[in-house]
Amino acid sequence: MATTQTPHCYEALTVETLPTRLIGVADLAARVGNDPASWSVQEVGDGNLNLVFIVTGPSGRVVVKQALPYVRLVGDSWPLPLKRAFFEYHALTRQAARDPGMVPDIYHFDEAQALIVMEYLSPHIILRGKLIKGERVEGLGKALGLFCARTAFQGSDLAMNAGEKKADTALFSGNVELCDITEQLVFTDSYYDAERNHHTPELQPVVDELRADPALKAAAQYMLMRFTSGGETLMHGDLHTGSVMCTDTDTKVIDPEFAFYGPLGFDLGMLIANYLMAYFSQPAHRSADELEGYQDWLLDVTRETSTTFHAEFVRLWASERTGILYPPALWEDQGQSSDGARDALLNHIWNDAMGFCGVELHRRILTLAHNADFETIEDTAARAKLEARSLDMGRTILLARPSNTDDLIALARATNAKDLL
Amino acid sequence: MATTQTPHCYEALTVETLPTRLIGVADLAARVGNDPASWSVQEVGDGNLNLVFIVTGPSGRVVVKQALPYVRLVGDSWPLPLKRAFFEYHALTRQAARDPGMVPDIYHFDEAQALIVMEYLSPHIILRGKLIKGERVEGLGKALGLFCARTAFQGSDLAMNAGEKKADTALFSGNVELCDITEQLVFTDSYYDAERNHHTPELQPVVDELRADPALKAAAQYMLMRFTSGGETLMHGDLHTGSVMCTDTDTKVIDPEFAFYGPLGFDLGMLIANYLMAYFSQPAHRSADELEGYQDWLLDVTRETSTTFHAEFVRLWASERTGILYPPALWEDQGQSSDGARDALLNHIWNDAMGFCGVELHRRILTLAHNADFETIEDTAARAKLEARSLDMGRTILLARPSNTDDLIALARATNAKDLL
Repeated sequence: MATTQTPHCYEALTVETLPTRLIGVADLAARVGNDPASWSVQEVGDGNLNLVFIVTGPSGRVVVKQALPYVRLVGDSWPLPLKRAFFEYHALTRQAARDPGMVPDIYHFDEAQALIVMEYLSPHIILRGKLIKGERVEGLGKALGLFCARTAFQGSDLAMNAGEKKADTALFSGNVELCDITEQLVFTDSYYDAERNHHTPELQPVVDELRADPALKAAAQYMLMRFTSGGETLMHGDLHTGSVMCTDTDTKVIDPEFAFYGPLGFDLGMLIANYLMAYFSQPAHRSADELEGYQDWLLDVTRETSTTFHAEFVRLWASERTGILYPPALWEDQGQSSDGARDALLNHIWNDAMGFCGVELHRRILTLAHNADFETIEDTAARAKLEARSLDMGRTILLARPSNTDDLIALARATNAKDLL
Repeated sequence: MATTQTPHCYEALTVETLPTRLIGVADLAARVGNDPASWSVQEVGDGNLNLVFIVTGPSGRVVVKQALPYVRLVGDSWPLPLKRAFFEYHALTRQAARDPGMVPDIYHFDEAQALIVMEYLSPHIILRGKLIKGERVEGLGKALGLFCARTAFQGSDLAMNAGEKKADTALFSGNVELCDITEQLVFTDSYYDAERNHHTPELQPVVDELRADPALKAAAQYMLMRFTSGGETLMHGDLHTGSVMCTDTDTKVIDPEFAFYGPLGFDLGMLIANYLMAYFSQPAHRSADELEGYQDWLLDVTRETSTTFHAEFVRLWASERTGILYPPALWEDQGQSSDGARDALLNHIWNDAMGFCGVELHRRILTLAHNADFETIEDTAARAKLEARSLDMGRTILLARPSNTDDLIALARATNAKDLL
């Protein structure tokens, strides 16, 4: 890990110091109330990296998110630069412009303090928690399919001015340390006995088999090259069900601090993998009479995300193709259809998405940062049986990509019926 | 085109002003002689963009290359930023480190004057001129295959530190205007009636057919996306036979001002296309008794470039794989072979190279910057017949890539026998 240089004036907030320290932030006071003595402050960060405070006052409530100069999950032995707040801020502003209303409103950004004051989403909770509890969210697949398509398309050379896109690529190229986490944890650590790895003990035979497969590792590393050298658009970079907050009818996307220029299909693929892990984990969370219906719903969400992504991309292709890529001068202006070109590009995006989906289905079970879908299953033998399905599906996908959503969903159902341990 | 801001102190050199203006450049005087009155200065720039002076004095000779704030080929109606000299300088230093001796030595760089003082290569001449004259260069394919492999491998995440590679990617992201030239002229203008295009009149039916093929244009635009969003390594960016200088036994690469992070196969593919255009143009330059032998030699050079690239990549894979991509931890450290992973990656590189080769075979005939191989053929009917072969091969390659060098060469021979007009 690179060493982190903490700016001289940076200081981590605490529940006690927050009111005094943020008293001068007019945009905060305007929303919460002018008298900091009237504020109540709660620290609620349950993620892996940051401090998250909810500040409540007589006029309202906001969230204050502050980066720590190390990985919270691991401690100060793993330094992590504060500038990730800078990248999160810039990603949020771009996402807000590209899919208005889908990310929290930003009220204030303090680069030196690595601090963002933003909208308190209520009564939203983290999607992953809802999926573990068996709750449904109306319009989930549609909202996230639109988000993935709009941010992907509008952040790419399909829509942006080429010079501005290159300048923005350069800006996000500074997000080295967070990319390093993705590069190692998502794409590489799964496939060897990396020091920070852990997995459910009963999985060992499956893990051994996976790590003995050179073709699988070649496919995963090719996806790493796509990630690190495929700067097609500004990705969210960490779009899993823990980066989505929902009510029963509303969906928002948070936490884009891993933002980086990468493949058009990255966010879509990572998100689908997280739906699938929710799906595979359900037998441990649902009673028999609820299980099938809820698993079906999760696959419906997967399908809706994918078909919405496709449809919105098609819409944007027709209406907002203003960049250097696939210019209308080559087709429409000559009286020709560009549908074939568009569909070939959509196949490329889907193929990438499936590759990313495959590695994500592995890494959440084999490397450092697991997910609660599986981790909350206390019976490790039962957990391992379900995790094995996720590993199996990831391997199948990486070695031969499902060519469309139907094939993907059929594969998920078939895998869900497998007895692997 | 973006407008260019010329730094206040920048002033284009002339043959007359050069001695007075560069009198203080110690690294120049040390090589040429201390008394500028003893220098003789010649302007020899025959390229499309820059001023090039040869300065000769009692102790030696150097080249002074200075960027102009516009495209020389077009005039000041097409401004072009001086900072391209900055990118050329930085590319030259990286190439010199990665393949020592293959680029001119740099003696002095003046960013404000957009000026590089460098080695005078003698008796080297531009390779394209030698190929038109029917001269052979010993070791040409080997030298350029090594250059492409070494710069590609060592500039990528296979070898570099990931943070340094991202910082360097950001630096070269500033080379917007020269990328814009490539993006438009190489990948797009060929496929519609762009204003600055021109082509040999007799080609019209072939051109019409080409521009009527939507699948071909989709393939070309996919390669544009690969170029502009596939930052795998630091490319030379303009590696044609006009960017190579040779004696009968020595080869050097010059003019990397188009340098940018792009696909591992870009330079290789562009170079091969330029060999192939030399090959297709030969019937107009050689007598019947020389033709076959010289065309065979050009295909031998093509083959040697490709096989050397492959062999050197394999060697570097085994000995210099120190980056985040395909780390030995996943194969060798587990007692497994990574040959399959390497060969899959080499296939990906070759596939890209062929795509770039295809678009280059088109653009040198259809867009603004033609090449002398064809342009020096005065009989336009004869020229068009030969150019049509290049267009035909480019189209075939873009629609179905030759899977290896043998297939590529067989296709070149078959195309060379076609009567297309």
